Amino acid sequence: MPELRKDPIVGRWVIISTDRAKRPADFVREPVAKKGGFCPFCPGNESKTPAEVLAYRPNGAGPDGSGWTVRVVPNKFPALGIEGSLARQAEGMFDKMNGIGAHEVIIETPDHDASFSELSEKRIEDVLWAFRDRILDLKKDKRFKYILIFKNHGKAAGATLEHPHGQLIALPIVPKYVVEEMEGAKQYFVYKERCVFCDIVRQETEAGIRVVSENENFLTIAPYAPRFPFETWLLPKRHESAFENSSSQVYESLAKSLKTLLTKADQVLDSPAYNLIIHTAPVQEAALDYYHWHIEFMPRLTKTAGFEWGTGFYQNPTPPEEAAKYLREAKVEKKEVVGA
Amino acid sequence: MPELRKDPIVGRWVIISTDRAKRPADFVREPVAKKGGFCPFCPGNESKTPAEVLAYRPNGAGPDGSGWTVRVVPNKFPALGIEGSLARQAEGMFDKMNGIGAHEVIIETPDHDASFSELSEKRIEDVLWAFRDRILDLKKDKRFKYILIFKNHGKAAGATLEHPHGQLIALPIVPKYVVEEMEGAKQYFVYKERCVFCDIVRQETEAGIRVVSENENFLTIAPYAPRFPFETWLLPKRHESAFENSSSQVYESLAKSLKTLLTKADQVLDSPAYNLIIHTAPVQEAALDYYHWHIEFMPRLTKTAGFEWGTGFYQNPTPPEEAAKYLREAKVEKKEVVGA
Repeated sequence: MPELRKDPIVGRWVIISTDRAKRPADFVREPVAKKGGFCPFCPGNESKTPAEVLAYRPNGAGPDGSGWTVRVVPNKFPALGIEGSLARQAEGMFDKMNGIGAHEVIIETPDHDASFSELSEKRIEDVLWAFRDRILDLKKDKRFKYILIFKNHGKAAGATLEHPHGQLIALPIVPKYVVEEMEGAKQYFVYKERCVFCDIVRQETEAGIRVVSENENFLTIAPYAPRFPFETWLLPKRHESAFENSSSQVYESLAKSLKTLLTKADQVLDSPAYNLIIHTAPVQEAALDYYHWHIEFMPRLTKTAGFEWGTGFYQNPTPPEEAAKYLREAKVEKKEVVGA
Repeated sequence: MPELRKDPIVGRWVIISTDRAKRPADFVREPVAKKGGFCPFCPGNESKTPAEVLAYRPNGAGPDGSGWTVRVVPNKFPALGIEGSLARQAEGMFDKMNGIGAHEVIIETPDHDASFSELSEKRIEDVLWAFRDRILDLKKDKRFKYILIFKNHGKAAGATLEHPHGQLIALPIVPKYVVEEMEGAKQYFVYKERCVFCDIVRQETEAGIRVVSENENFLTIAPYAPRFPFETWLLPKRHESAFENSSSQVYESLAKSLKTLLTKADQVLDSPAYNLIIHTAPVQEAALDYYHWHIEFMPRLTKTAGFEWGTGFYQNPTPPEEAAKYLREAKVEKKEVVGA
């Protein structure tokens, strides 16, 4: 008998197959492959991108040359425009505004052929600091209500350029999924006077069956009601609503947790395409006692989304307890081709 | 400058590209092809499916033989089980219940090689009656709160069998997207004392620029804030919250509207893979003055969903005004290979 499970934050019911659970080898998919060719993100091609907004250069050289370890540039084909006013207006019963925002690319390493999971913990941490630095800069612009940071790895996950990179989109509105998480978490807080994410950290630590890994500051789990097979969340153990307000120890721990998770996923799922999304509070909010930032990792194992796109109704063929077991038991032999 | 547009029902903001709008030829994708091989849905193979729950046989023959025009059978590999009780229970802070439900397949035609868009209007209408008949039967079971009817056409849309068919899933819960639509529509009704869908029908009819086609009972439009390129909605002109409570004239009109839309989409988008979803009120509700059933049509033109899956945040490269224009101007030379 399959199970229906409810996500405790947003209230989404998900069908979890239990009888014929899908194991890692059951997911047939194209491997993430690199084809090469000209790459605007490679060192030496700095002039092919818009002028950089941030870069870490251990050698202290000037902007838009080589020598960087992490480099952030505006997206050449941005989803939103940076100049102008919002000009909120009606169109009869409908509402619209100008597509004002920022769209940036975080180039995670000069090494085209590396993958994010192969960077050293220190280099992954640098990428996290770049995310933070860009958020702190962009949130000064009061037009921006939300800063979305995500990573599409592999074509199946929507990546169009193969050089390792993340993306940042600053938005004049709060996206619907964030509003839903905040509303759900607030309802829980009103009723329980506790943060729902803090409660999840406590219960999952105790139960253990959905834990993938753990370190001083992070708990990595397969959530109770995942939409996708091998969906995994990284939760800070200490309550904090905004990613950018975390302490330096937290970034250090997060880099370790990410490296561990991605290495395990590469092993168990044969280097899958994936999406990584930072869920954090809207940037103009004060610290929130009911919301708790975290990262969601979704390997792209099923070839088509089908009607889930249009309905928000999910059927997951792999129980999270099994997914967590596979990931937990995978040995971590960390490859560090870059910055070891 | 791109535009941010808000869906008036659920409040979702969508980025609509205006500068470099994608036209039909810009979407590269695999065509929907049929490979043949053994098909359990073909006439003569009735014994290879579970016993039928409904069939229309103009020749009046008995069940589970050939001679049918539409045949409904339980899914051989159901997402949910029909027997047992819900047994709602807690698992610490989490909530779960048994995966009780019905999962049926509506075989739309005996002709393996036809596509739904090629059926005659009369045969399409028969399929709609089969949907209705199954809803009326299943809603007697008070365990079921929602009946989801949808169609995945083509592999890219999630179809695993190529013989034309729709699916029905009866659920003990109301899916999140329905709850959201109902809550949004209710908020609008509380404020305006009018149905938001009725208002959309009025405003879109007047504006004209997003209208694809229209007949006595239906308006077919590209919605104001579509998530996907060429997303299209079919709205009944008269207020009615439940699909199954419509009059026979409504089904007749809907069959015509569907045939027109699918024929136009086949022309403009080169016979795309698509999802078709009936959005209707929960089956145990009385008639609702604030909710209005409708159908959403989503051609699968982009190869990957990327991070939209995880965020509910959408960027649409084709403004609905342009999509509607392409579809509106496509000539309808209706192919009717079946039951003409």
